[in-house]
Amino acid sequence: MIGEGSPTVGVVGGGQLGRMLAEAAAPLGIDVIVADPTPDPPAAPVARDALVGDFDDQDTLRSLAARADYLTYEIELADPDRLAAVSAESGVPVHPSPDTLRMTGDKLTEKQRLAADGIPVPDFRPIDNATQLEAALDALGRPLMLKARAGGYDGRGNAPVASVEAARDRFGNLDGLVAERMIDFDREVSVIGVVGEDSTTTFPVVENVHETEILRETIAPTRSSLRVTDRATTVAETVLSVLDGRGVFGIELFEASGDILVNEIAPRPHNSGHYSIEGAHTSQFEQHLRAVVGWPLGSPELRDPVVMANILGDVEEPRPARLSGVPRVLETAGAHLHWYGKREARPLRKMGHVTVVPTEDDSRDTLLSRARTLRDHLTFT
Amino acid sequence: MIGEGSPTVGVVGGGQLGRMLAEAAAPLGIDVIVADPTPDPPAAPVARDALVGDFDDQDTLRSLAARADYLTYEIELADPDRLAAVSAESGVPVHPSPDTLRMTGDKLTEKQRLAADGIPVPDFRPIDNATQLEAALDALGRPLMLKARAGGYDGRGNAPVASVEAARDRFGNLDGLVAERMIDFDREVSVIGVVGEDSTTTFPVVENVHETEILRETIAPTRSSLRVTDRATTVAETVLSVLDGRGVFGIELFEASGDILVNEIAPRPHNSGHYSIEGAHTSQFEQHLRAVVGWPLGSPELRDPVVMANILGDVEEPRPARLSGVPRVLETAGAHLHWYGKREARPLRKMGHVTVVPTEDDSRDTLLSRARTLRDHLTFT
Repeated sequence: MIGEGSPTVGVVGGGQLGRMLAEAAAPLGIDVIVADPTPDPPAAPVARDALVGDFDDQDTLRSLAARADYLTYEIELADPDRLAAVSAESGVPVHPSPDTLRMTGDKLTEKQRLAADGIPVPDFRPIDNATQLEAALDALGRPLMLKARAGGYDGRGNAPVASVEAARDRFGNLDGLVAERMIDFDREVSVIGVVGEDSTTTFPVVENVHETEILRETIAPTRSSLRVTDRATTVAETVLSVLDGRGVFGIELFEASGDILVNEIAPRPHNSGHYSIEGAHTSQFEQHLRAVVGWPLGSPELRDPVVMANILGDVEEPRPARLSGVPRVLETAGAHLHWYGKREARPLRKMGHVTVVPTEDDSRDTLLSRARTLRDHLTFT
Repeated sequence: MIGEGSPTVGVVGGGQLGRMLAEAAAPLGIDVIVADPTPDPPAAPVARDALVGDFDDQDTLRSLAARADYLTYEIELADPDRLAAVSAESGVPVHPSPDTLRMTGDKLTEKQRLAADGIPVPDFRPIDNATQLEAALDALGRPLMLKARAGGYDGRGNAPVASVEAARDRFGNLDGLVAERMIDFDREVSVIGVVGEDSTTTFPVVENVHETEILRETIAPTRSSLRVTDRATTVAETVLSVLDGRGVFGIELFEASGDILVNEIAPRPHNSGHYSIEGAHTSQFEQHLRAVVGWPLGSPELRDPVVMANILGDVEEPRPARLSGVPRVLETAGAHLHWYGKREARPLRKMGHVTVVPTEDDSRDTLLSRARTLRDHLTFT
């Protein structure tokens, strides 16, 4: 399995997730080839090759399949129908299955599927016109969370709305949406789940701090009670049992009044799992590769408590990326810089992250404060 | 310093050290281009590019310099004169300095230089004829260690000899050699030292187990006494003070009767520092890159005790590399596989390594035993 016959994994998408997949692939002897519409995307410097083509371009996917033993994707913009077709004609398996990508790519279908399996989700309703929205506002309360069924990520396509007028201002036509009861959560937590060839595993429950719907920090493990943590793990395991195809899944959860609700599922490595590169015995990227190629999964246990802080574009408008404040990160024992290689900083764009591990018996609060201080000194302005 | 103006490092040599340099470069936003006589060498899949050309080929070095902000090397076969010439004409600095490469590339010059600075080394004598060897055997004892001044690594070019005849059988002409007193060491230890732009640092002292002069395992930290460990650190710091140019140095030491002697110095990341990828807050590969590009050095402290075991070609003659026994490594919590991507297994060739970190409060002896068991199940036969 390793050596002459080492596998090549073709990845649709060559962003930071593809880059970190390629970084994890090398020690395992796995080659990674990415396909991305952007020439020289973040993954290119560390991938065996980077094909240029749209995510739904059949020729690009065919070229990728021709050079790969397995196909996967690191972005929800991958096209499930095209992937299924190319996989069928080439005989190259794709993981997770295109069905799962299709299901998680539609927030209504996803919630319906989870609810049908008894998995707790916030109350929700499909919205395809103003009448339905009016009824939803009455039933679910004002404001409710309105989401585009497809195409959203990092909170794009999500907005709390209290009236039909506000919804029209934000979404235009009131169709292809899903309305959800606003959850007055105590904490947002998440679990990275892994479905392997003949086993599944879950990483520890971690705590996520969002601002304007974008992840800012992850604290691993979560500061939740043991009871809530156990419940979150159980819910995550149930989620994995209804997903088809191997790979890593980011399972976003709300902790509210001591209970757990599923928010969203990403069928790929997830920002809230980046801590695992230094924090866990096996990173989410290595687990994804192991799962995709059918190798045994590794231990997801933490080596230490750890905090991850995102480096976002703190700019008003796009400009060439020049990050200052880096020496302070490099000089801090236990701090690890991860730069994604993007040439342009854009407002709130994910440009990199910093992970802080303990050097002494540091508490999670100490690690969080250290990570925030380092991150707050990093600037593109 | 990071972003638009991120540096590119040109590395002479594209073997496993180049590969692990490239793995470490990506999170820092540093691009790596390697140059190696072998097409598609181990570093190629994770490097930005791999130029093909002999280590002393001026055109290859010029091409490398034309695309790099800094030059370095990961193999002693790099040519110091050519590197100096290309650096001078291109204005691209090379670290560590070619003078250091020249000095450490000649075992006689190296020992003379160290001895001149009061650094403890085994008694030695230059050997250029049988008469000198006869005198050395009388003075240093039989057997003595005879070494080719240039070109040796992994014990190649080293042999214990007890007579002029034995030396002729092994070395042919008795010139260009250095004779050293055989050291009846208690332990072989080493220190990875780092010379940065305006600071130096040393990794913890580690213990190395060799067999037939090839490293088999590294135990970090060493099980030596505190007094010996302190002495080894002091000697390593003194060695760094006499070396010219920035970068990582592997400093091999003998621990004998409670004292420390310098055996050899490698002006590059060193096999006995591979443990640092998982074991230290900053790996030797990241430190080398930081040093070469002039960034602040990181903490070399251990996160945990750790053991590294080399995966060597256990074959009688060259054959396509197909490693079995890998699932057991993948399934063991705390075990990390590093495969170098070499297509052919050769007798005792370094093919990869396994690092084992603690999952509980494991002792170094437990880690060593676990690493050996895993490694011993890996086979190419």
